[in-house]
Amino acid sequence: MPLNVTQKLIKDHLTSGEMVPGNEIGLKIDQTLTQDATGTLVMLELEAMELDAAKTEASAQYVDHNLIQEDSKNPDDHLFLHSATRRFGLYHSRPGNGVSHPVHMQRLAKPGKTLLGSDSHTCANGCMGMLAMGAGGIDVALAIAGEPFYVKMPKVWGIKLLGELPDWVSAKDMILELLRRHDVKGGVGKVIEYYGPGIKTLSAMDRHVIANMGAELGATGTVFPSDKEIKRFLAEQDREDDWIELVADRGATYDIDEELDLSKIEPLIAKPSSPGNVVSVTEVAGTPIYQSYLGSSANPGFRDFAIAAEIVNGKRVADGVSFDINPTSKQMLTDLVKESHIASLLQSGGRLHQAGCNGCIGMGQAPASGRNSLRTTPRNFPGRSGTREDSVYLCSPETAAASALTGKITDPRTLKMKYPNVQDPKKPTVDINLLDVPLPYEEAKNVKLHKGPNIASIPKMDEMPDELEIPILLKMGDNISTDEILAGGARVLPYRSNLPEISKFTFEIVDETYYQRGKETVEKGGHAVVGGFNYGQGSSREHAALAPRYLGLRVALVKDFARIHWQNLVNFGVLPLTFVNEEDYDMLKQGDIIQVTGLKEKVRKGDDFTIGIKGKNQQIKVRQALSERQKEIMLKGGIINWVKERAI
Amino acid sequence: MPLNVTQKLIKDHLTSGEMVPGNEIGLKIDQTLTQDATGTLVMLELEAMELDAAKTEASAQYVDHNLIQEDSKNPDDHLFLHSATRRFGLYHSRPGNGVSHPVHMQRLAKPGKTLLGSDSHTCANGCMGMLAMGAGGIDVALAIAGEPFYVKMPKVWGIKLLGELPDWVSAKDMILELLRRHDVKGGVGKVIEYYGPGIKTLSAMDRHVIANMGAELGATGTVFPSDKEIKRFLAEQDREDDWIELVADRGATYDIDEELDLSKIEPLIAKPSSPGNVVSVTEVAGTPIYQSYLGSSANPGFRDFAIAAEIVNGKRVADGVSFDINPTSKQMLTDLVKESHIASLLQSGGRLHQAGCNGCIGMGQAPASGRNSLRTTPRNFPGRSGTREDSVYLCSPETAAASALTGKITDPRTLKMKYPNVQDPKKPTVDINLLDVPLPYEEAKNVKLHKGPNIASIPKMDEMPDELEIPILLKMGDNISTDEILAGGARVLPYRSNLPEISKFTFEIVDETYYQRGKETVEKGGHAVVGGFNYGQGSSREHAALAPRYLGLRVALVKDFARIHWQNLVNFGVLPLTFVNEEDYDMLKQGDIIQVTGLKEKVRKGDDFTIGIKGKNQQIKVRQALSERQKEIMLKGGIINWVKERAI
Repeated sequence: MPLNVTQKLIKDHLTSGEMVPGNEIGLKIDQTLTQDATGTLVMLELEAMELDAAKTEASAQYVDHNLIQEDSKNPDDHLFLHSATRRFGLYHSRPGNGVSHPVHMQRLAKPGKTLLGSDSHTCANGCMGMLAMGAGGIDVALAIAGEPFYVKMPKVWGIKLLGELPDWVSAKDMILELLRRHDVKGGVGKVIEYYGPGIKTLSAMDRHVIANMGAELGATGTVFPSDKEIKRFLAEQDREDDWIELVADRGATYDIDEELDLSKIEPLIAKPSSPGNVVSVTEVAGTPIYQSYLGSSANPGFRDFAIAAEIVNGKRVADGVSFDINPTSKQMLTDLVKESHIASLLQSGGRLHQAGCNGCIGMGQAPASGRNSLRTTPRNFPGRSGTREDSVYLCSPETAAASALTGKITDPRTLKMKYPNVQDPKKPTVDINLLDVPLPYEEAKNVKLHKGPNIASIPKMDEMPDELEIPILLKMGDNISTDEILAGGARVLPYRSNLPEISKFTFEIVDETYYQRGKETVEKGGHAVVGGFNYGQGSSREHAALAPRYLGLRVALVKDFARIHWQNLVNFGVLPLTFVNEEDYDMLKQGDIIQVTGLKEKVRKGDDFTIGIKGKNQQIKVRQALSERQKEIMLKGGIINWVKERAI
Repeated sequence: MPLNVTQKLIKDHLTSGEMVPGNEIGLKIDQTLTQDATGTLVMLELEAMELDAAKTEASAQYVDHNLIQEDSKNPDDHLFLHSATRRFGLYHSRPGNGVSHPVHMQRLAKPGKTLLGSDSHTCANGCMGMLAMGAGGIDVALAIAGEPFYVKMPKVWGIKLLGELPDWVSAKDMILELLRRHDVKGGVGKVIEYYGPGIKTLSAMDRHVIANMGAELGATGTVFPSDKEIKRFLAEQDREDDWIELVADRGATYDIDEELDLSKIEPLIAKPSSPGNVVSVTEVAGTPIYQSYLGSSANPGFRDFAIAAEIVNGKRVADGVSFDINPTSKQMLTDLVKESHIASLLQSGGRLHQAGCNGCIGMGQAPASGRNSLRTTPRNFPGRSGTREDSVYLCSPETAAASALTGKITDPRTLKMKYPNVQDPKKPTVDINLLDVPLPYEEAKNVKLHKGPNIASIPKMDEMPDELEIPILLKMGDNISTDEILAGGARVLPYRSNLPEISKFTFEIVDETYYQRGKETVEKGGHAVVGGFNYGQGSSREHAALAPRYLGLRVALVKDFARIHWQNLVNFGVLPLTFVNEEDYDMLKQGDIIQVTGLKEKVRKGDDFTIGIKGKNQQIKVRQALSERQKEIMLKGGIINWVKERAI
């Protein structure tokens, strides 16, 4: 059967399951990517798993998110990450090197490989003929430890590209066109695969733009073929040997079919506050702006900055406009410097920032209140810029540069100039030292992890006990979110690498006494919590499972669970149970003591079972829904113990 | 009588007083400089004074401190400052343009002029043959409004420079040598004036380095002559017409004499945590470092970055070292880019930051805990870097660059290379648009101040009443600091431009109920506070006088005052009184109501007088110590009212 590129990539990495859309499949992971915001916990998980050395072909840790060092916490994290990469045999990208996705593309991405990253825009490297996917931190830790990644077999959504983009229109406009057509959930459960004659008109970096924002369509991944353009790109990076050709078989089909004529696309813009809120730039032209922002993994290429530089060259940005320039990799910044583009951007009034994620994830460059910000970034969710009730528009570098000059949203086609012919540097800078390479094992095994005062190892956790006699510490209602279980935000998240500290905030919003009461149960066999419908909705943060577990939580008994939190509870060894009869919820009170015997056997069997309430002649029927793999994990007391044991 | 340069500058600007060291003199101010951290309050004061247009020859507002925009507060401040410069006829320097001192030097500094700035390093522009001094915000507001600046006539400390600096030794080492000799109080009450044959070996920017760190010696100012080198510098900036020659008369003398042979100086370093803690680099060589930091107004010159770039060119900084590059002006950054120095710094592993003050004032780039930071900045006071218990060393760019390569403190003379011959660019970039020039008055007078939600005008304040019958709301002990009156720090200072909001923190540490109780007295004639010795010690922040006044404070009666707070109380219309008999302190209780009649006449006369306590047959004798000018200010209810009335 002729295969498309996605199917080839999956087939080549399949460890379990059938390639039928919706079925769970296991995939061998060749490469991983972590960034510093998620990476510290991943590294602590690797430590807790007692990993000796990464089992992937290449795993890289990038420092690109938390670059603002207002006190010692971020630099301490940086040093910890550096030491962890030395210990576990990972690549390390120093702060200031740039954003993970373009740097990974330049130095490590390889056609034909799988890449799993603890960052939702990991999919960007699908531009290189890879299957690249974002995932939770523990999934990436498992991949580094050599475990497969489990995911539902996606549908493959083939988009045939025709024609060529007109002047003043670029890759960003193309992906905005797809968001205009399909909105932010249009790609859920799918891998988007591009093919057709239009592809050859798009450079590797253009494809990066498009693959990156596949995340905004909700897609599992985006796949481009590995063709001559990828060969050219790798040759430019002195990595021609890493190239293989990877294109769809003649006659390959797709689960969903679509066509896109590049020549018909016009400059587009996503209005506040969703990337799917797309209209033509002409429709909002004239709207005044406070800020024009270049950079991020959604427009990381040399050409994205060079075209803006050519547009503003010799001119001056409008009075009162903050023109923020955020280079995306040190290698490209060097070329932009050498080719005079940085000088043009500076002289026009630009503010040149350190290479990194920066304002794209709210780390600086927040807009003034009540003012509009125009950005080449991938997301404009409310408040993401750092400013409450912000008003962020997403657009191409052409539109951002044109608007910086006029001080209002401007269709670049209305500028009185010829479309600049931007040339890539003849011999681009290749900084082979951009990444610190893994240490040889003999050296790595002796490296000590460097932990600043705010970084603490994840404590050892015990196996699941066979008998439970534990109190219900909280009885909650419906729709308890992970923010109520463990809040995010600037007050709490600085402790993300310190479980004992961050656990002090657990359930704080629900009941301030929980932390103390929970801690007291740890030595006495732990405790349970009871909840209503949709328990654990909201953010996917793993701390919302890890912190209660640390405080002794063994059972969460609710009417039903939000999917990701349910998975996180299993991963950290908290048994998630639902009521078989929802009205039994009313029978339970905070302070009741629940009793179960022979729990291990019950979990192994997987059937419904009953639990008793101490001092009451009542039985409550409960349901579990664990897969065979999850049963094993639960019995071991969580995924960290499970991996540790497998390694032995 | 032959005069030295300092005396010429003072004589030329004297409005009152005699030029006898220690006497108060009034000086006409030609130019002012404000930065954003202090500038927002200055602009609000100008608004409250109902200033129509700046009366100085040139006043410039720089945005260089609060560049980190994590939410809307800093960008809102930026827009407010921009609007205020448009309204009052000031120059405006956009965020990202660079540090006030070098930018002012490039675009506005003029030999023979006086410059007053609300930044302690304003003295840096003494390198241009100016009398340049730092002062409090209200002093600068008064200067902008055309009032003279009052200061004690300084002693002039003449330092004769001989010889020439050896290879690997630069201007920073020279000023560190003076700090080694005289420590951080050696310059108090003095203006340092350099002369002698060694001067011609120092470029204008070298002199900036030396004048800048005169602040660290505690000097009132530093004065260099305006010679051919200044002419050359101004010509380079297309401002040759701004040059006048200004040198000491033949036979001029100094109050203090010293000699310094430049050829004898070696690489020096200030150890933690004082700029006066100076030793030879060789003494601490080998100490491991986390960070090597280039930039700040203490090493702002093209050559300071270029020499570092030449040292690291083609090499790579040591593993784990954060090599932070902080350009000081956009104009110089453009030249550093054009001359390939930025490329060298980047390729060696440097992190290039936005032009501005940045880590020098703890805005980012804080070092990791327990690690050493090596900086070319002027100050290493404990915690200034943002990291508690930090360990910051101050040194030259040569030492910083050499140490970045080795990862430990390194005497640059031990590098195996020739001392690089750094050339200034043949035709340096002159960005005549670097500053937004003042608007013509006809346009300026119609500009509205732009106030984000966190910026509030200073409310109108009434005159001093003639009768007082007001309660004592607080009775405090000795050594109450301005931090206890109104705390600094990240929780409070974001409200620096919002008096109603920041006043909520007033005396919070002493008594949480004060804010509410104070506010209730405003309509009823106000209230008093009583204190012991050394009342108002610590930080000079004006809010510690302005906020209690806003809450109704009319009289502070204490055993004695810290000098600056006493002055601030007068400026904001709070009558500062001391006990004639200290034991009367014991007579007063919180809640007592004090009574005074005929207060205006009493203040006018200036003698000791008595105040009564309601319901008690007791009189308390109190002392005032106001100058004639201060009496006028007090009667008007503070300096803002006083200036407003003079303008009419």
